Amino acid sequence: MRNIRLLVEYDGTDFAGFQKQADKRTVQGTLEEALNRLVGERVKVVGAGRTDAGVHALGQCANFRTRNPIPAERIAVALNRLLPRDVVVHKAVEAAPEFHARRSAKRRRYRYVVLNRPGASATVGRYCHIEQHPLDVAAMRRAARYLVGRHDFRSFRTGGEGSPVRNVRSITCRKTGRFVFITVEADSFVRQMVRIMVGLLLRVGRGEVSPSSARRVLSARDRSAAGLAAPPNGLWLVSVQY
Amino acid sequence: MRNIRLLVEYDGTDFAGFQKQADKRTVQGTLEEALNRLVGERVKVVGAGRTDAGVHALGQCANFRTRNPIPAERIAVALNRLLPRDVVVHKAVEAAPEFHARRSAKRRRYRYVVLNRPGASATVGRYCHIEQHPLDVAAMRRAARYLVGRHDFRSFRTGGEGSPVRNVRSITCRKTGRFVFITVEADSFVRQMVRIMVGLLLRVGRGEVSPSSARRVLSARDRSAAGLAAPPNGLWLVSVQY
Repeated sequence: MRNIRLLVEYDGTDFAGFQKQADKRTVQGTLEEALNRLVGERVKVVGAGRTDAGVHALGQCANFRTRNPIPAERIAVALNRLLPRDVVVHKAVEAAPEFHARRSAKRRRYRYVVLNRPGASATVGRYCHIEQHPLDVAAMRRAARYLVGRHDFRSFRTGGEGSPVRNVRSITCRKTGRFVFITVEADSFVRQMVRIMVGLLLRVGRGEVSPSSARRVLSARDRSAAGLAAPPNGLWLVSVQY
Repeated sequence: MRNIRLLVEYDGTDFAGFQKQADKRTVQGTLEEALNRLVGERVKVVGAGRTDAGVHALGQCANFRTRNPIPAERIAVALNRLLPRDVVVHKAVEAAPEFHARRSAKRRRYRYVVLNRPGASATVGRYCHIEQHPLDVAAMRRAARYLVGRHDFRSFRTGGEGSPVRNVRSITCRKTGRFVFITVEADSFVRQMVRIMVGLLLRVGRGEVSPSSARRVLSARDRSAAGLAAPPNGLWLVSVQY
């Protein structure tokens, strides 16, 4: 069996997330359907990150196994002809037999995009969260520092399976014009972790809670301490490292 | 009768253009439906620019007449609750009785956005045209100069009604990173004029024709001289002046 690795971009707006679900339009299901037609076998696609409904990806990584001898360099072009407009495969390469897009991943980078100005948008609002209240980005940076490192992230996850301990490598908050970019890198993430973190950072930025409240929320080890998750449309899976 | 002026943003992707057509989803039809519900009358919406299917607007201007006494400053908020996500009204103000969004307009500004790099995109491709071949922006600027001024734009229009003479005030080509922005200002435009102009400028940028071919195309006064129009998804109606 060959093992093929894919670099995938998608617009999450019209998907019920990455992971396959019966009777729902998902990225995994859409990729598998196109691959089944391309290679004439039933294939299973594994993704590095199981992004939520509405979350986008610039650099999702996925893999699948096949007996079909189609040259790897032809897969992306052939697949893009079969895929809908909101999923694009940028690259397909031969991977080692043991490669697993999720389990082999060493680091993931997510970016949350905030447009900080009053008023909705019919266009860019698809790809960023619009925050009407002026954000204190310096305060958000101070709060973010408490969340970097190896911690029990029980306060920042939805659902309760597996260990809540994760290693956050960095969180940066950058302001460019009216946009604020919050970039989080970690070995891996618990479910909805970035959106719950960003929800808290936005409350800090609006001045509703102090930067040090991030420390209190973390040590509470209780989901209800963190408040609402930020909406999915601002979140992007940027890249995965192996 | 009151006359109300609206500032409207929309994502043109899922619309068959601005102008109302039977059994098609149009911006005018969508605005009228929401307004009919809001004011309890059948209203007619006039737009400054009849944008094509797939063309977006940041600053479309429209007006409608009503007997309903709803304060102008409440109209935008109330209307946005009734409108789908891909249309947003940013402002509603009382206008003079004779104000007509199309006939009163003195100047329109359109911007065409090109992402100049290889590979499709599942996300930003919604809002820009992806041009794989490296563009010579200086050559595009030289070609654009021939198109500025009062000319017979028969070579740059689809359909044949009315005078083909238009007054183009300026065309600028700006490169920022991998993006090229082509901005065209004119008193008014003939149908598909910007997209046909941009189609020609892209051929100049790719080196397929010389900058001076713009002069020949203009003087041919023949639509077939200009070649294919650029796709609609890169085009934005930016603003309208009165």
